[in-house]
Amino acid sequence: MSVSPELLVRHLVRKLQPYVPGEQPKIKDLVKLNTNENPYPPSPHVLEAVKAAVDGRLRLYPNPTAEPLREKLAKFHRCRPEQIIVGNGSDELLALAVRAFVAPAVGREHTVLSWDRHSTVQCLTPCYSLYPVLAAIHGARTHTFPLEPNFDLPQPRSLRKHPAWDREAALTFITTPNAPSGRGYTTGQLEAVSQLLRGVVVLDEAYVDFAREHALELALKYPHVLVARTFSKAYSLCFQRVGYLVGPANLIGALHKIRDSYNVNGLGQVAAEATLEDLDYYRKNFKRIVQTRDALARALLELGFQVGTSATNFLLVDPPRGTAQEWLGWLREQKILVRWFEDPRISRFLRITIGTETDTARLLEATRLILAKKC
Amino acid sequence: MSVSPELLVRHLVRKLQPYVPGEQPKIKDLVKLNTNENPYPPSPHVLEAVKAAVDGRLRLYPNPTAEPLREKLAKFHRCRPEQIIVGNGSDELLALAVRAFVAPAVGREHTVLSWDRHSTVQCLTPCYSLYPVLAAIHGARTHTFPLEPNFDLPQPRSLRKHPAWDREAALTFITTPNAPSGRGYTTGQLEAVSQLLRGVVVLDEAYVDFAREHALELALKYPHVLVARTFSKAYSLCFQRVGYLVGPANLIGALHKIRDSYNVNGLGQVAAEATLEDLDYYRKNFKRIVQTRDALARALLELGFQVGTSATNFLLVDPPRGTAQEWLGWLREQKILVRWFEDPRISRFLRITIGTETDTARLLEATRLILAKKC
Repeated sequence: MSVSPELLVRHLVRKLQPYVPGEQPKIKDLVKLNTNENPYPPSPHVLEAVKAAVDGRLRLYPNPTAEPLREKLAKFHRCRPEQIIVGNGSDELLALAVRAFVAPAVGREHTVLSWDRHSTVQCLTPCYSLYPVLAAIHGARTHTFPLEPNFDLPQPRSLRKHPAWDREAALTFITTPNAPSGRGYTTGQLEAVSQLLRGVVVLDEAYVDFAREHALELALKYPHVLVARTFSKAYSLCFQRVGYLVGPANLIGALHKIRDSYNVNGLGQVAAEATLEDLDYYRKNFKRIVQTRDALARALLELGFQVGTSATNFLLVDPPRGTAQEWLGWLREQKILVRWFEDPRISRFLRITIGTETDTARLLEATRLILAKKC
Repeated sequence: MSVSPELLVRHLVRKLQPYVPGEQPKIKDLVKLNTNENPYPPSPHVLEAVKAAVDGRLRLYPNPTAEPLREKLAKFHRCRPEQIIVGNGSDELLALAVRAFVAPAVGREHTVLSWDRHSTVQCLTPCYSLYPVLAAIHGARTHTFPLEPNFDLPQPRSLRKHPAWDREAALTFITTPNAPSGRGYTTGQLEAVSQLLRGVVVLDEAYVDFAREHALELALKYPHVLVARTFSKAYSLCFQRVGYLVGPANLIGALHKIRDSYNVNGLGQVAAEATLEDLDYYRKNFKRIVQTRDALARALLELGFQVGTSATNFLLVDPPRGTAQEWLGWLREQKILVRWFEDPRISRFLRITIGTETDTARLLEATRLILAKKC
């Protein structure tokens, strides 16, 4: 052995800045409003179903294609199981999409081949900050196209001839409703934008259950559109890691080819299947979270915050005095954890997950205290 | 849209032959001896721990780095948590190793750049049939080097100057004990071979708990050696998807950079932690399985089978009359499922997972019946 240990790792990987997920600290009595988790537990039916599956069968491999779950999802979305792939959270599926549809442009150790459409991931920014990380891991290029200043989708008219719009990009990610802003989009808007793309489009609907409409029909209509969903947020199953993609069978089939053989853990499959049998429980939760969200938005507005329109389970707010980064620290002192992003386009905002009514009351109390004391 | 839907998928992916996992059929009373699952359930302590974790906390993200589990594993293996990465089964980690240490050589859609050490995955064959699939998915080259005819490791002396030995390969996989043959290797043998490699070496110890020795010390001694382990087989947790790699912190750190943020589901982490608290239960199981294995080997020998030495929970056997493929069908008629591989180097063998004593009795009964009737 005389290779330097450093050189055993690809140059591309050595240079990578990894994705930084929101903190998961273990502080007692913390009000955790930083990672968009649902404040309510899974339904009793789901908990029962998971518990009932915890026995000697854990020794066996789970269904390798999550077939029973895909059948239930296909029925729910009125499509065929071949149009669905289930993943270890939707994160896994977003990564698979990059690997299946985008060619790496970094050959060997150092050479960057010329970038072209095959190697381009396009993101409408700001967006879920994972996409550029996935592109970088793969040796692909991220091309960003900005949303409107109010986080709305750009007008199709202006896109058509815009020099920065890459209609040829191999893959375009659209977070809809948008994160981190919370802005929702109509199916009509999303359809118009998708029509202006010749590569694959992933409509990432991680938060769509809190919105007024979803665009799943586009994944069943167009040969290049996929919709990503997750059981994590709306269905209170972050711990279990289950997400899925819906779309044309040939694109879904390509993703199946490159995933791990048993990528979805068995108890996650059980939990997701049971969730689909108890949707009324969750619909009541969505309603309650939306009500809490709208009440919190009004209260923060009254306290002088600027509050963006939200179709999700979080709010993006601009504090009245002090910087967002300062507020992050001040709220933390009050044992309230929210999210702040360094990205200069959104660094003046705080992202606040909608918790229970009690969480909201504690947040507002802390906010009033900070406004009185700090600024 | 006028791109042909076919062309939305990378050429590389369109051409791929996916990995075919062993069947997971739902046939009543089937004796399932085809995917090396443990015939015994997880310990009662593990089942209790998992059940106790099934509550409202499922709504929260799991620990993103599996930190408590890594700390326990580090203590167990006498290393630092930085030397361990936990994955969604060890399959995920094998795939990550290919992506972190091997450069793709297929640029763009069609161009194959010249293969070189940076793009080479070396496998000592026959081996776990997933490795070449992972290389192909990544656009890397698989270089195979044959084990001895009895599946033993090649002699270091003969390797040193062997024209087919690629000491420069970016990544070399060694299944140890070997699958599908079951042959075990000494730490000394593995050390000698590892010293003849300048890229990263993964010693895949998926079955090592059934062997006489393991080579974990090599991952703590050499800057280029990783050891892969899994909770699936020996620890009866296939359903939960938990595996891990041990090795030098800089290699492990590279893998952490490119994995999904929450790659290990929470209940899997809980189950694996509880497993480490109850190792005596499992050690008794290993002993029992090894006894069943050795008794089955003797019985099959008496019936005229050739039976390879095994340090695992399966046997590779060569039937006395009829082809292995015919035996696969004949045993299936008797509701006994074993594994047969098309690969011409091993197509004359059947691989039989060690089940319970009852499973073994049924297998022997069916075997006697087949010998009497069919051949």
